[in-house]
Amino acid sequence: MRTLARDISQAARDRPGETITVSGWVHRIRDMGGITFVVLRDRSGMAQIVFSEPSLLKNSEASGEKPAAEGENGLTLESVVTVSGIPALNEKAPGGAELRAASLVVVSRAMPELPYPVNGDIAKTGLETILDNRLLSVRNPKIRAIFNVQAVIIEAFSACLRSRDFTEIKTSKLVWGGTEGGTELFTVEYFDRKVCLAQSPQFYKEAMVASGMERVFEVAPAYRAEKHDTPRHLNEYVSLDVEMGFIESEKDLIDLERELLARIFEEVARKNAADLALWKASVPDAAAVAKAPVIAYEDAVKTANEWANGQAAKASGQAAGKAAGRKTERIFDINPEAERFLCDWSAAEYGTDLVFVNEFPRRYRPFYAYPSDANRTMSFDALFRGLEITTGGRRQHSYEAFVEVLPRFGLKLENMQNYAALLRYGCPPHGGFAIGCERLTARILGLANVKEASLFPRDRKRVAP
Amino acid sequence: MRTLARDISQAARDRPGETITVSGWVHRIRDMGGITFVVLRDRSGMAQIVFSEPSLLKNSEASGEKPAAEGENGLTLESVVTVSGIPALNEKAPGGAELRAASLVVVSRAMPELPYPVNGDIAKTGLETILDNRLLSVRNPKIRAIFNVQAVIIEAFSACLRSRDFTEIKTSKLVWGGTEGGTELFTVEYFDRKVCLAQSPQFYKEAMVASGMERVFEVAPAYRAEKHDTPRHLNEYVSLDVEMGFIESEKDLIDLERELLARIFEEVARKNAADLALWKASVPDAAAVAKAPVIAYEDAVKTANEWANGQAAKASGQAAGKAAGRKTERIFDINPEAERFLCDWSAAEYGTDLVFVNEFPRRYRPFYAYPSDANRTMSFDALFRGLEITTGGRRQHSYEAFVEVLPRFGLKLENMQNYAALLRYGCPPHGGFAIGCERLTARILGLANVKEASLFPRDRKRVAP
Repeated sequence: MRTLARDISQAARDRPGETITVSGWVHRIRDMGGITFVVLRDRSGMAQIVFSEPSLLKNSEASGEKPAAEGENGLTLESVVTVSGIPALNEKAPGGAELRAASLVVVSRAMPELPYPVNGDIAKTGLETILDNRLLSVRNPKIRAIFNVQAVIIEAFSACLRSRDFTEIKTSKLVWGGTEGGTELFTVEYFDRKVCLAQSPQFYKEAMVASGMERVFEVAPAYRAEKHDTPRHLNEYVSLDVEMGFIESEKDLIDLERELLARIFEEVARKNAADLALWKASVPDAAAVAKAPVIAYEDAVKTANEWANGQAAKASGQAAGKAAGRKTERIFDINPEAERFLCDWSAAEYGTDLVFVNEFPRRYRPFYAYPSDANRTMSFDALFRGLEITTGGRRQHSYEAFVEVLPRFGLKLENMQNYAALLRYGCPPHGGFAIGCERLTARILGLANVKEASLFPRDRKRVAP
Repeated sequence: MRTLARDISQAARDRPGETITVSGWVHRIRDMGGITFVVLRDRSGMAQIVFSEPSLLKNSEASGEKPAAEGENGLTLESVVTVSGIPALNEKAPGGAELRAASLVVVSRAMPELPYPVNGDIAKTGLETILDNRLLSVRNPKIRAIFNVQAVIIEAFSACLRSRDFTEIKTSKLVWGGTEGGTELFTVEYFDRKVCLAQSPQFYKEAMVASGMERVFEVAPAYRAEKHDTPRHLNEYVSLDVEMGFIESEKDLIDLERELLARIFEEVARKNAADLALWKASVPDAAAVAKAPVIAYEDAVKTANEWANGQAAKASGQAAGKAAGRKTERIFDINPEAERFLCDWSAAEYGTDLVFVNEFPRRYRPFYAYPSDANRTMSFDALFRGLEITTGGRRQHSYEAFVEVLPRFGLKLENMQNYAALLRYGCPPHGGFAIGCERLTARILGLANVKEASLFPRDRKRVAP
């Protein structure tokens, strides 16, 4: 019977003097001359193991058929071992207990030279090194914490939607062309023809809403063949997609996203306290999500400019002479800089680092965006801690309006037959949005680059491991 | 306030005489001369609506800006409508109540000629017609039931694993080459190079087990560029993947799959009773899963042959003369025919249509399969109702054994550096398996072709819609 690291102190209290067995990875070795302290890592956490004499550190069982070759003695970091011994309370040890080893079995010996220092400070290695050595870097507890949080995000997202009558769907990622007719698509050689990797499940989500399912969600990869390499982009990402029928406007969707984010933050706070602590991070509470402002695009641009100028004036006031001559560039769009300004503004004005921007101009949104008037659409973005994490909106559901709008976007009806079929046979008012899973993860933990929040990120240069 | 179809009888009981509003799709129209019965479909089910006079069937509100053109009057099937009226108990109506309409608004008018008869009997149209018209055919309640069941399968699979300390992961589907070095891979044009679509997340699952996460699962698409078109294959399918550290043999995995299947069946029975009823289907209970036999490959081949011969003898006994001369072909492998025979045998002998076959010969399994002796591996398949739904097994975790075995499989270490990195730095004994989501769905409902259980299936000829 194996005992997990987190249960050692319980064992020490409940069954003092009884031998227990733990298994895991050798995270750290401290030789104190005679006594050796080994920190063992397993899925539940860390355990301190005390080897009171050097002979106990010898493999007490042959792991293979051959005797150990020269140089293969000695415990190595990251080896997988099984240790039996007596648990003892020790308030200085992680979890308040340690294991006094009586025997050691090396289950899988790690090569002595690790290409990445698993137990080191990740701030001391660059992102490229971390990603080049992903199989080892993900063993670092702080890095693994990122993916513990991500798992809870996905769980909470799904659970919240199921409780609101949403059905999970799984749709094809091999499509005949872009949903939005865009050019940023990867091509797949599919038998004797070429197809594309889906950049969004939107068409399929809409189809399932129109089928009568009404409320659907999907958690799946999405692909963008963007050539530029930025801290906010991934060529393959996990899209948390939602689509909902019988809505009136994007405000229904903003309400739903508030509920979703509040639930996600609540679950992460509850289940990932240790992970958040490693990153010195915290999540907004429900009140902070509730008070996130909704600001119309035009006002948002204005506010971002005012905020930028106010900040610049403040800086020049503080730093006197030197910065006084600096002039802030005018912001014309909700670009990455404006996203940061708006979140700072919201934090200062509303005490929340979440902002919804709605009423985007028609020229900035795709053909299917539902117009609220001649120039604006029922669409929105969600910005969180300086980064856009969501784009969404109500979609066009009228076939006649769809046919009318196509030429304005340079699209031809004969190339849009699938979309036409969606609207010709009864389609309710509907809309949806997608949350970028890696972006949300990154912003919760304060990661500088969204690639850090992807287990095996893909960019223009990276397709391995 | 909208009332769902399933809540009409409640409204009739709780607030008699009060007007309610329903919205949904016109599923059926029965004109009884003067009185018209409309069956309305929404996400919750069906509602009977009674229009006591023809004038009530007229759109009481302009849905667009234009007046209705000639021929645009008259309610069409699949139109989305909103109806207000008084609910009344009627035990002959679905759900035990009907709505007596007072007003109708056509929200989205369906073209009068439907390319697919949504409210018809799906047995009357072939699979190709169903898939060609997927946007409409999925509106058929019996077809939508398939995907209601599938959503619950995914939910139960994930919930069961989370309760057992498994962490959900999302790994890249763009890989530098096949996990198994196979040839059945789709190629993606990835910027200036070519990569492949992953046929399995196995390498990544193993990497995450070895990272210390120990227990992981993933629900994601998987790709096989198989050219042949069979009722059991999809070129893109949803793989329910599991991987687990610190196992002793494939028996630990079989135990886990029993637990998973029992949980999935239980949840489907509980949440999809109406969906199962539409297909006249049922799921095995926990006792049936518990008594599923585990039979070694060699014995399974023997048993399949004996069963086939026994059945042939029985048939010839029954049909006398004519069939007497027929000889059953000898089965040499667990081919599709043997899978059917083994499930029939298990149903007859053990009262369960689930069978686990283990101890597959080394020559039938990939290089990473863990050998139990010189000829056999710690691997298994799960067969359910005549179809393989799972392949899995314990994997090699020793770097030395991995290096030794590669030449036997025609593989070169220099091409396997990623896999080597997985094993060089401490890897626990581990294994895993994958359940084909569409296959399990199909076998639960008794679908003849696995494509029926894929929302937007991909085969050699089909990439749309």
